[in-house]
Amino acid sequence: MSKSSEPLTRLDKAIRRLKAQRACLDWAASEAVAIPGVICELGLGNGRTYDHLRARLPGRDIYVFERSVSAHPTAVPPQDRLILGNIEETLLEAQPRFAGRVALMHSDIGTGDDARNARIAAWLGPLLPPFMAPGGIIASDQPLEALADIEAPLPEGVSENRYYLYRLPR
Amino acid sequence: MSKSSEPLTRLDKAIRRLKAQRACLDWAASEAVAIPGVICELGLGNGRTYDHLRARLPGRDIYVFERSVSAHPTAVPPQDRLILGNIEETLLEAQPRFAGRVALMHSDIGTGDDARNARIAAWLGPLLPPFMAPGGIIASDQPLEALADIEAPLPEGVSENRYYLYRLPR
Repeated sequence: MSKSSEPLTRLDKAIRRLKAQRACLDWAASEAVAIPGVICELGLGNGRTYDHLRARLPGRDIYVFERSVSAHPTAVPPQDRLILGNIEETLLEAQPRFAGRVALMHSDIGTGDDARNARIAAWLGPLLPPFMAPGGIIASDQPLEALADIEAPLPEGVSENRYYLYRLPR
Repeated sequence: MSKSSEPLTRLDKAIRRLKAQRACLDWAASEAVAIPGVICELGLGNGRTYDHLRARLPGRDIYVFERSVSAHPTAVPPQDRLILGNIEETLLEAQPRFAGRVALMHSDIGTGDDARNARIAAWLGPLLPPFMAPGGIIASDQPLEALADIEAPLPEGVSENRYYLYRLPR
């Protein structure tokens, strides 16, 4: 365990972030069970959260937007639910297809580059609501300022600014 | 939290692995305080464990072997303690330089490829003891069968096969 008197290391922060992510996805998935529609994930990465969402939401269609796949082979979505390409293009193209049909959107596209993260989040926030089903939930590793009005409370045990939840009106 | 009745997802396993890694490194570092010598890390990765070791062992020289640096800029060792290149060559070249002088060796070179991990671990295990100071500790993300005779107990709370510790005779 890290000692509370010492500053957090990057290892401590990684553990804290993944635990916050899991708590948020578990809550979001438990709510999404009652919301008709598809699940979308922005950024496959190593496939950890895709694997988690498909375990928590069995039978639901999960569409993943990813530039190029580098996930573990067992954590790659089927071809017809994998939307390959630059997300800044593919997400715009996908809007008519998914409009109003997304029960849960998970955006996990942060990198170590804070300036780039802020730029992407500023671009992304206003784009997402038209995708969402009524009552749909957005979970994000980055704060989405455009959605501040619909921010949802974090699950118990998750401190502020570890992860971000938003919920569309029902 | 994950529910105990459900199989672990890749996200659950990542959290479990990082917590085991942190517990092992915290124990190893607390012991290494009393062992003269340098610290070596095989594999910088994103720099998380390097950052953790330098926080736990302030003032100690930490040498990192890495093929090519992709860590966060704040978690990259100084140039003179970064040994760049294919570890299968650089580690052999470094043996005369570090022989008998390593207080703590952390090997974190596993990938998603189990066959490759087993091959590297089989190659690595027999190579490490000549590097180590008396009582020196090896922490590894992979089991090192060649060192089975000097396996050390895991810290409390870490289950078997989550991480691996070895300790040279004093």
